[in-house]
Amino acid sequence: MSHLRATDAETPLSGDVLLSADVLKWFAEAVLRKAGVADEIAAAVAWSLVEADLRGHSSHGVMRLPVIVRRIRAGAYNLETLPSVVSETPTTGVIDAANGFGQVALQMAVDLAIQKAQGANVAVAVVRRSQNFGSLGPYAERIAERGLIGFVCTNGAPAMTPPGGRGRVLGTNPLAISIPYKEAITLDMATSVVARDKITLARKSGRPIPEGWALDADGNPTTDPAEALEGSLLPVGGHKGFGLALAIEVLAACLSDSSIGTEVGWLYETTRPQGVGHLVAALRPDAFIPAVRFAQNVERLASMVKQATRPEPGATVYLPGEPEHRTRRQRL
Amino acid sequence: MSHLRATDAETPLSGDVLLSADVLKWFAEAVLRKAGVADEIAAAVAWSLVEADLRGHSSHGVMRLPVIVRRIRAGAYNLETLPSVVSETPTTGVIDAANGFGQVALQMAVDLAIQKAQGANVAVAVVRRSQNFGSLGPYAERIAERGLIGFVCTNGAPAMTPPGGRGRVLGTNPLAISIPYKEAITLDMATSVVARDKITLARKSGRPIPEGWALDADGNPTTDPAEALEGSLLPVGGHKGFGLALAIEVLAACLSDSSIGTEVGWLYETTRPQGVGHLVAALRPDAFIPAVRFAQNVERLASMVKQATRPEPGATVYLPGEPEHRTRRQRL
Repeated sequence: MSHLRATDAETPLSGDVLLSADVLKWFAEAVLRKAGVADEIAAAVAWSLVEADLRGHSSHGVMRLPVIVRRIRAGAYNLETLPSVVSETPTTGVIDAANGFGQVALQMAVDLAIQKAQGANVAVAVVRRSQNFGSLGPYAERIAERGLIGFVCTNGAPAMTPPGGRGRVLGTNPLAISIPYKEAITLDMATSVVARDKITLARKSGRPIPEGWALDADGNPTTDPAEALEGSLLPVGGHKGFGLALAIEVLAACLSDSSIGTEVGWLYETTRPQGVGHLVAALRPDAFIPAVRFAQNVERLASMVKQATRPEPGATVYLPGEPEHRTRRQRL
Repeated sequence: MSHLRATDAETPLSGDVLLSADVLKWFAEAVLRKAGVADEIAAAVAWSLVEADLRGHSSHGVMRLPVIVRRIRAGAYNLETLPSVVSETPTTGVIDAANGFGQVALQMAVDLAIQKAQGANVAVAVVRRSQNFGSLGPYAERIAERGLIGFVCTNGAPAMTPPGGRGRVLGTNPLAISIPYKEAITLDMATSVVARDKITLARKSGRPIPEGWALDADGNPTTDPAEALEGSLLPVGGHKGFGLALAIEVLAACLSDSSIGTEVGWLYETTRPQGVGHLVAALRPDAFIPAVRFAQNVERLASMVKQATRPEPGATVYLPGEPEHRTRRQRL
């Protein structure tokens, strides 16, 4: 797999072999099909992996293929049953992922939310009995590409401690919001200070981590990445990040009747289904304001943000998602 | 006004005079009526101020009466026109606050969202041409008290710099999410690291502020509260907080066609209407899952969080909004 190694640098490192996105997707699909995954599911999973690599989020990219294949072989994915809509109203839907791939169920939820919001102006779909689907941003952007405001959130394996507490209670529960614009403005953030991957990386390179990233198993602050990996991550902004993570746990898991908090299974360490839940929402701007006027308002806002750039040469202020779009263009 | 001074401490400081909430509300209403505000509007504004004091958020409490009265006298509030619904669908509504009090228009949006969500399972209302309405939490909780998940956000006067930038571009754009529970679980957070009030307080007491709170007018980090007040606040978690603030600006201001970013007027420093926008959303849990089962899931989640309390005597982990409920009970 070493020739597939992607990096977060915007330019390829010498020694890396460059593959086109099509070839990478073809390869990922072939690996998944070989492991027994149906064509349609393999395509959905490969799309998610390659989109993450294209945007510079390689930790959610094709480097996940080995763990996915290990989990397939261990029976962690139901390969027989496709996700299905188990209940719906004109504005809501509940999808059962049946312990299959999260990527397939989430895409179904995105499609359902788009379709319902086009009719009813706002729609919310939840997914139960699901698994990790990688990066949220590309899915939220699929909603924005249809002219709707998109929202995606998911719970995850226990990793984070509430302020004043100890132990792992909630996942790093990420959320994504995508706003229709020339290239969609997309916030895609975990509610922890940093991703666990950064701590794994620090341990591998033998470097300490900054204070404020993590606690040890007893709930004490630590700068030792090994202790942190045995301990827990801290929420971004203390009570703020933890409150967001808790709200996401309610939206993604309590509403969908999925596994909650400490019940959730790990992507990397278990051979059982994770049981996570997701929530997708879509909102039609033109239910509130003419579409042209909305676009003008977003344009005005985006200009104000860009104009805040410092005068030094090379200084840049990015809109949320802008670095990912830039990396994606370069890599394509 | 000194006898009305509230503090954020949970027990009254000696020297403070304790007033019952009813007396405080009566007083605030009387002051507002005396300044020319109609009874119904005075009641709505006084409710918001007293709820903030009861929850320990005195910066949003009756200590705001003097600035409100000054602004009334300067003509910053339209006292003649009540807010009105200018367009609606079964799931959405647009309310024009007509440059009156934000408290009245936001309450109308909350009522509209509740009513529509009870029929359509999910509803979103926006408010345009509005003004500061104080704390978000009490309004979001009014939605949760009806068994719905409540969401409230607003833009605000420019105060915050994007990462890598300089100057004030966005407000501290707060959001609140309230989950139905014994006492509602309520996250109520600004997207800045700290509220501007904390920096004002530091300047008054002649203390420096920690690094990471604010920038000076040139966009350089500062620990001098006076420089910070001339400069800008930093978003919580860097790109994360700024991305949230930007998304809130789109939801609250771009959708409602309100003033955006640097166009927004200050509560404390201008005599003109602020022109801010708000967004309120309500979601019926029982559109996805039986109400009893949802309550069990939230209970299970809340228990997990409380069980993460450290073993030391006196250690406590709070659910979002729990300290406010506790302070409110004590103060009542």
